[in-house]
Amino acid sequence: MIKYQPIDPLVSPRFSGIRTFMRLPNEETLEDVDFIVAGIPFDTGCTYGIGSRFGPQAIREVSGILKPYNPVLDVNVFDHCSGVDYGDFPTVPGFIEETYEMVEQALVPVYKKNIIPVCLGGDHSVTLAELRAAAQVHGPMAIVHFDAHSDTGDTYFGKLYNHGTFFRRAIEENLIDPESAIQVGLRGPLYDGRQFKFAQDAGVEILTNWDVRKMGIKATITRIREKIQEKPVFVTFDIDFLDAAYAPGTGTPEICGFTTFEAQQLVLDGLKGANFVGFDIVEVLPSGDSPGKITSFAAAGVAFDFISLIAFNKQQGN
Amino acid sequence: MIKYQPIDPLVSPRFSGIRTFMRLPNEETLEDVDFIVAGIPFDTGCTYGIGSRFGPQAIREVSGILKPYNPVLDVNVFDHCSGVDYGDFPTVPGFIEETYEMVEQALVPVYKKNIIPVCLGGDHSVTLAELRAAAQVHGPMAIVHFDAHSDTGDTYFGKLYNHGTFFRRAIEENLIDPESAIQVGLRGPLYDGRQFKFAQDAGVEILTNWDVRKMGIKATITRIREKIQEKPVFVTFDIDFLDAAYAPGTGTPEICGFTTFEAQQLVLDGLKGANFVGFDIVEVLPSGDSPGKITSFAAAGVAFDFISLIAFNKQQGN
Amino acid sequence: MIKYQPIDPLVSPRFSGIRTFMRLPNEETLEDVDFIVAGIPFDTGCTYGIGSRFGPQAIREVSGILKPYNPVLDVNVFDHCSGVDYGDFPTVPGFIEETYEMVEQALVPVYKKNIIPVCLGGDHSVTLAELRAAAQVHGPMAIVHFDAHSDTGDTYFGKLYNHGTFFRRAIEENLIDPESAIQVGLRGPLYDGRQFKFAQDAGVEILTNWDVRKMGIKATITRIREKIQEKPVFVTFDIDFLDAAYAPGTGTPEICGFTTFEAQQLVLDGLKGANFVGFDIVEVLPSGDSPGKITSFAAAGVAFDFISLIAFNKQQGN
Amino acid sequence: MIKYQPIDPLVSPRFSGIRTFMRLPNEETLEDVDFIVAGIPFDTGCTYGIGSRFGPQAIREVSGILKPYNPVLDVNVFDHCSGVDYGDFPTVPGFIEETYEMVEQALVPVYKKNIIPVCLGGDHSVTLAELRAAAQVHGPMAIVHFDAHSDTGDTYFGKLYNHGTFFRRAIEENLIDPESAIQVGLRGPLYDGRQFKFAQDAGVEILTNWDVRKMGIKATITRIREKIQEKPVFVTFDIDFLDAAYAPGTGTPEICGFTTFEAQQLVLDGLKGANFVGFDIVEVLPSGDSPGKITSFAAAGVAFDFISLIAFNKQQGN
Amino acid sequence: MIKYQPIDPLVSPRFSGIRTFMRLPNEETLEDVDFIVAGIPFDTGCTYGIGSRFGPQAIREVSGILKPYNPVLDVNVFDHCSGVDYGDFPTVPGFIEETYEMVEQALVPVYKKNIIPVCLGGDHSVTLAELRAAAQVHGPMAIVHFDAHSDTGDTYFGKLYNHGTFFRRAIEENLIDPESAIQVGLRGPLYDGRQFKFAQDAGVEILTNWDVRKMGIKATITRIREKIQEKPVFVTFDIDFLDAAYAPGTGTPEICGFTTFEAQQLVLDGLKGANFVGFDIVEVLPSGDSPGKITSFAAAGVAFDFISLIAFNKQQGN
Amino acid sequence: MIKYQPIDPLVSPRFSGIRTFMRLPNEETLEDVDFIVAGIPFDTGCTYGIGSRFGPQAIREVSGILKPYNPVLDVNVFDHCSGVDYGDFPTVPGFIEETYEMVEQALVPVYKKNIIPVCLGGDHSVTLAELRAAAQVHGPMAIVHFDAHSDTGDTYFGKLYNHGTFFRRAIEENLIDPESAIQVGLRGPLYDGRQFKFAQDAGVEILTNWDVRKMGIKATITRIREKIQEKPVFVTFDIDFLDAAYAPGTGTPEICGFTTFEAQQLVLDGLKGANFVGFDIVEVLPSGDSPGKITSFAAAGVAFDFISLIAFNKQQGN
Repeated sequence: MIKYQPIDPLVSPRFSGIRTFMRLPNEETLEDVDFIVAGIPFDTGCTYGIGSRFGPQAIREVSGILKPYNPVLDVNVFDHCSGVDYGDFPTVPGFIEETYEMVEQALVPVYKKNIIPVCLGGDHSVTLAELRAAAQVHGPMAIVHFDAHSDTGDTYFGKLYNHGTFFRRAIEENLIDPESAIQVGLRGPLYDGRQFKFAQDAGVEILTNWDVRKMGIKATITRIREKIQEKPVFVTFDIDFLDAAYAPGTGTPEICGFTTFEAQQLVLDGLKGANFVGFDIVEVLPSGDSPGKITSFAAAGVAFDFISLIAFNKQQGN
Repeated sequence: MIKYQPIDPLVSPRFSGIRTFMRLPNEETLEDVDFIVAGIPFDTGCTYGIGSRFGPQAIREVSGILKPYNPVLDVNVFDHCSGVDYGDFPTVPGFIEETYEMVEQALVPVYKKNIIPVCLGGDHSVTLAELRAAAQVHGPMAIVHFDAHSDTGDTYFGKLYNHGTFFRRAIEENLIDPESAIQVGLRGPLYDGRQFKFAQDAGVEILTNWDVRKMGIKATITRIREKIQEKPVFVTFDIDFLDAAYAPGTGTPEICGFTTFEAQQLVLDGLKGANFVGFDIVEVLPSGDSPGKITSFAAAGVAFDFISLIAFNKQQGN
Repeated sequence: MIKYQPIDPLVSPRFSGIRTFMRLPNEETLEDVDFIVAGIPFDTGCTYGIGSRFGPQAIREVSGILKPYNPVLDVNVFDHCSGVDYGDFPTVPGFIEETYEMVEQALVPVYKKNIIPVCLGGDHSVTLAELRAAAQVHGPMAIVHFDAHSDTGDTYFGKLYNHGTFFRRAIEENLIDPESAIQVGLRGPLYDGRQFKFAQDAGVEILTNWDVRKMGIKATITRIREKIQEKPVFVTFDIDFLDAAYAPGTGTPEICGFTTFEAQQLVLDGLKGANFVGFDIVEVLPSGDSPGKITSFAAAGVAFDFISLIAFNKQQGN
Repeated sequence: MIKYQPIDPLVSPRFSGIRTFMRLPNEETLEDVDFIVAGIPFDTGCTYGIGSRFGPQAIREVSGILKPYNPVLDVNVFDHCSGVDYGDFPTVPGFIEETYEMVEQALVPVYKKNIIPVCLGGDHSVTLAELRAAAQVHGPMAIVHFDAHSDTGDTYFGKLYNHGTFFRRAIEENLIDPESAIQVGLRGPLYDGRQFKFAQDAGVEILTNWDVRKMGIKATITRIREKIQEKPVFVTFDIDFLDAAYAPGTGTPEICGFTTFEAQQLVLDGLKGANFVGFDIVEVLPSGDSPGKITSFAAAGVAFDFISLIAFNKQQGN
Repeated sequence: MIKYQPIDPLVSPRFSGIRTFMRLPNEETLEDVDFIVAGIPFDTGCTYGIGSRFGPQAIREVSGILKPYNPVLDVNVFDHCSGVDYGDFPTVPGFIEETYEMVEQALVPVYKKNIIPVCLGGDHSVTLAELRAAAQVHGPMAIVHFDAHSDTGDTYFGKLYNHGTFFRRAIEENLIDPESAIQVGLRGPLYDGRQFKFAQDAGVEILTNWDVRKMGIKATITRIREKIQEKPVFVTFDIDFLDAAYAPGTGTPEICGFTTFEAQQLVLDGLKGANFVGFDIVEVLPSGDSPGKITSFAAAGVAFDFISLIAFNKQQGN
Repeated sequence: MIKYQPIDPLVSPRFSGIRTFMRLPNEETLEDVDFIVAGIPFDTGCTYGIGSRFGPQAIREVSGILKPYNPVLDVNVFDHCSGVDYGDFPTVPGFIEETYEMVEQALVPVYKKNIIPVCLGGDHSVTLAELRAAAQVHGPMAIVHFDAHSDTGDTYFGKLYNHGTFFRRAIEENLIDPESAIQVGLRGPLYDGRQFKFAQDAGVEILTNWDVRKMGIKATITRIREKIQEKPVFVTFDIDFLDAAYAPGTGTPEICGFTTFEAQQLVLDGLKGANFVGFDIVEVLPSGDSPGKITSFAAAGVAFDFISLIAFNKQQGN
């Protein structure tokens, strides 16, 4: 029996009621749940267009339109999974290290119970806190990182932590296994030609947009699957992986990116059956979104695909 | 002991968490509460700019910024009152009579327990359902109606119900006592010079914007108080009472209207100590609002003043 | 001699004058016309993002930029066709069945005179009224349905009519011939895996976005042509067939959709030479559109391609 | 018998149909009309925020909401007046002198038939063309000029004509009688302290915003009436007379301005019974307007008050 | 001879060229200047709507429209003053204490040379850094604080510094003289009735919006002048002093506020002739501004009035 | 030693400081520079959606995000090139021929010094002035013209110059060599089937969007290279070459266009190593852009690719 599932749209219209993700119950519980959706409304790590503290709210707002059956995976999420909207994790606006501690502490019990968190950022700095919590339970993980940017900066004005350094820190802190790590979609001008070197030297595979275009989506999928294999894997999706036309509402939009359909192929075909530890989707900036809120719709769709992957695994008995 | 009050902003930032009104607990309960805030996301009664079904959500979204102490009334709401965000009442989009029944049924128990509802529209047609429920308990009430429009149309394409007819229907159905009714702020071009006649003949007092400007806010307040006296009173506030510059996000914006400060004077000084039955604030249209969401901020402020009036009465031992 | 054609842009600039579709004369006439463009500003059938009552106006507003020669079909529309902007059909906001009757009555004489209507919605519920009128003259028709959603819901809160049920009603009412019906572009989460069953059991062909991507645009075109053959065919285009990036201004935007170029290929190559009865383009929601009004531009472009198809047939002597 | 009046809103909803001003018939006729509304979609005279070529369309778009009875003047416009939406006058984008000639030629017959034009700009340069036409019939007129700017610049990059010089040109060309001219609402920083000198030396009365605030609206009204007396008077209203909060959609918004109510008082009480020759309302910039389109609503309201003044005179037998 | 002044608008149009404040030369010099305009693009101190890091840019963008002569003070700024756009002070996004140090260091030499800085925020936390610098030179100053909020919070999540605590810190750090300090315009709900106590106990005068309304603008001006007298005075203007309708683009908009004209009266009449040390204008949030950018126009206008006050003093020989 | 390069982002954050293109020094110098970036804020040549006078500013505003290394060409721009933001060229708003002269005069010395200008429009009419200047030095050039429109109109209301005629004028004035000219991306309805004839008869190659789609990007690149060979080439990029979804902020958006990635392929692979004379990017209309400013980001990206091509040539010793 599935305990927590969305409100039936025939009981109240989709535009009705308090906005939780996908109209799931807002319960801060770890009992009888397979996954939780939780916000991390934090953007102090942002070095350019700021305001992703309002990202979780914006994604929830449009997510009421989501329905439970994923036709691509042929799975009805709530035939197999129970999930809640866990609310937002605690943060201290303006103070990144304190926030890291609070988010990490809040997430450790989730990982310990083998519940899969789907986190809604916030800027990309929050992923480091998630990884710290996950690594306490799972050790260094495989990671699939969809992004326009490598986020492997070293320091910025002498500071270690911001949304452009999380991936380097995660390697340095041994939270992820670089040999099982892949970054997909990187593009745009760089500081210099050595910007990817740190990660590549550590063993990370990097596929730029030109790489993906040249090899095609199918080969990219193969490359992702080869990298992560059966290892516990964390999936982090920066919304700017999508082209600026598909996700205008983000802090550092990049042109020459991907469509939502390409993203869906990579996420569903690239990750189906993998051994998931956690997911996040970050950098949604509502103040830059179009009036039709297409960035939030895209982020909600990605989050739904994440949840569908969890359900698919359950369905398959993984 | 006050059972239900907002989340402490020092526990989580104001931009954090699931959006309920003023960060109140989302509980569908009538125990231990003095007031409830409830949405009525319905706009089928709208004859022009539509979309106020998203009004309750938009008001909740910005209401997290509200703090508990009202300096004008010198009252800390949650020293005296317990309140919840009751969620949204059931509606059937596209079907007004069915919605009327559902809202009425949902509200009758609230009125029976002498809990004061603060409803968030929705278009102004919903007020009729609220009045029907209230009148079951209180009989024909006094009413204070802040609006740019008189809403005393008869039929529209042969139909009785829409957002421009509720006030006439309320008189016809004996839900309000016209002798204790006052409409404030009416303005703009009319169909003809007899448009106010129906209400005036019934005994309703009408103060247009020119009337209010001529007599001043103080005299207007006196007139309101004289009209309603100690009778059970329902207060309905159409956001287009405010000038279009102050509330651009509404279906039929009207120029030559009032400032938020004038509205606050009328609401707080005009209604302080009255014998309240219910409140609503209607016609917020988020798609027409400015990027800064000033219409939603204004509506949240009016709703807060309504709640403060409830608390003030409690404080005074009324 | 072509009687009705657009105002010459060298007589007045394209941004000048009363906005009719493509600067055609606004005449409510059925004499000397081959096609009419008519709005159906009705959105009471909408269950989520509402406001497509302003759709016809928004499409007309930008359509002044259209020029008469279609280079893809190598046809100058007004060398072969006379057309007018017929204005908007009567509607009753808030009342769907009455509106259905009024639209149907208004359209029957158009169909009787073998004039091809190009209707601008409004939400997708209006298509049922169009089909009812068309079927009075043509009997059950072939239909090509471009959409992200199947619109084959049964009832919603016990009601038969809204924008998510028109296709099912059309089958039930024998307005369309399911064996000659094809739905293209369906995507996004569903209520369950049986949602397409009703239509498919009746004989309708369904091509989801994944189907189209897999088979390619060319094979899709072949499939459309095989389905409709020489039968009288109605073409209905929900703007959300386009990806949310290409058509953000719609009530239920869906990601993972199609580009305008793909749509143009499907419309022009897929339908060239077919035996058209009527066209519509629906679900344009101006309040959700980007400041550049790209959704309205896209809709105007689709409508122009519809008109070009009419002219192409004339040119070919069909 | 009044020949031309708006479509009855009970025949079709206000959001329905081709957008003409106030739903008047779009007829290019000078028979059986008392006033015409005509657009002048020209903005080449603009020296800063450009785009008022779309102003007439934007004002028409929202004007459907206007009703025929003006409660302030107690007059039902179409009991006394017949009027049409005459469409837009011809213009040549990018070429101001050619446009001046075309507009002048188009307007002379209107003035000759003693029909009162209510023109919708366009930038303020178009007023010169209107005055040239009017002066052919009426000689040098009185003028009431509501504006934030004096528009008495001399040349700009050596050029005589733009939206900042029309008033000086009108004096120089003897189109207006400076002794019967008044400018109301001027404000904001100037090039130097002598900027008003040219007009004042010619006899023009200038009331800045500080002047109006000091003397009050009533005294301002008296001053206007004293100036214009019974002379033929032209009224030109630059929408930036209104404060930027009330009319954000304009090319050079100015703070510290007036409310729509103050404007209405000045227009209705200041001009009631005057001997009108022509009216215009200019500088509406839709691309700068708020999503709720409050600037267009304000402009439509001013235009309606102009029409009401015409009707009031008819009613009084003037 | 005035060395630095704006580019002549007859040399290049106002919409042309690199955007500096008022088209002043962008020079990082302290020679031959009477005032500097400098940005502090920092918003890490913000606890709600964030993004004022883009404030300085937004104010500069529209400031090209400003002209040199202030008609209210009858002063042509650049007849008396030389000024530059000094660019932006250094900041470290995400790190408030480091930023405080950098801003303070950058400002000390300015104060030492008796050059008056007009700073453009940034959130209100930056004012503390400005005061620290100023106090090094001038000791504890008088202060006039226009704001909707008292900014006298103590700690927030245990942290001393953010945009809601600067005023308390300034008192604690002895940067301002509370007996010569006045806060004007405070309004909106509070945490409790004792929120103003800290400042009032220290001797600060607080005038809420209701106070100002009751006593009138003139009496308010008197009160300001009495407070500051001849003492060195710092003026800080939070844009949310203005009503949300006049300044929608700010992080925590408050209704029931002031118009730009009221602000101008208070600034020009309230401060004329005072002994200025420094000025700032803070909390402009471009992402919340209306498309017409009225908040930026308002802020540019306030900054121009500040500069005019400096010039007025020069003119008067103060 | 490279003299002029961007401010180091570790010295001041990317959102900080006066906005020049890519944070280059704003110097009006032709010494020690390889390229200049210059704005031409002129839009009087625009026949529809106007406002590109604000284009240069909008592109500069977002260009601070650009970094110096182009990974596609493997070149670090400022290892090889020195460049400045030259500011904006002089223009006279409203007067096209005067502006042509001023821009031409300003550009001749640039071309004479073999400095490559990258101009930011402005509407497409400005390209004629650029070509006139370039041809003085280089004679008739090869040209690559990316655009949705052919811009080969003859006259418009009897006038020779506007944004739809520059290409024809350039042929007539012998500024470009038609045999070495190629137009890529043309699409949308035309006046008639002969609209491309003038250019094609002169020898220009035209590739419509359907042509490009049919032959593919690679073959298109080949065609471009064959056309221009080693000749001095001017590259002009109308932002509406991009699909309306990718560049909504433009005066005449066209659907069925290209993605930014396709554009990047054509620009970088199509032009790598060519013998560049000048570049421009035109028709950015900020008022039509999405809140996320994606059109400006796209334009900045194209401009960066232009600069990268210059640097690549230097690197290769061309």
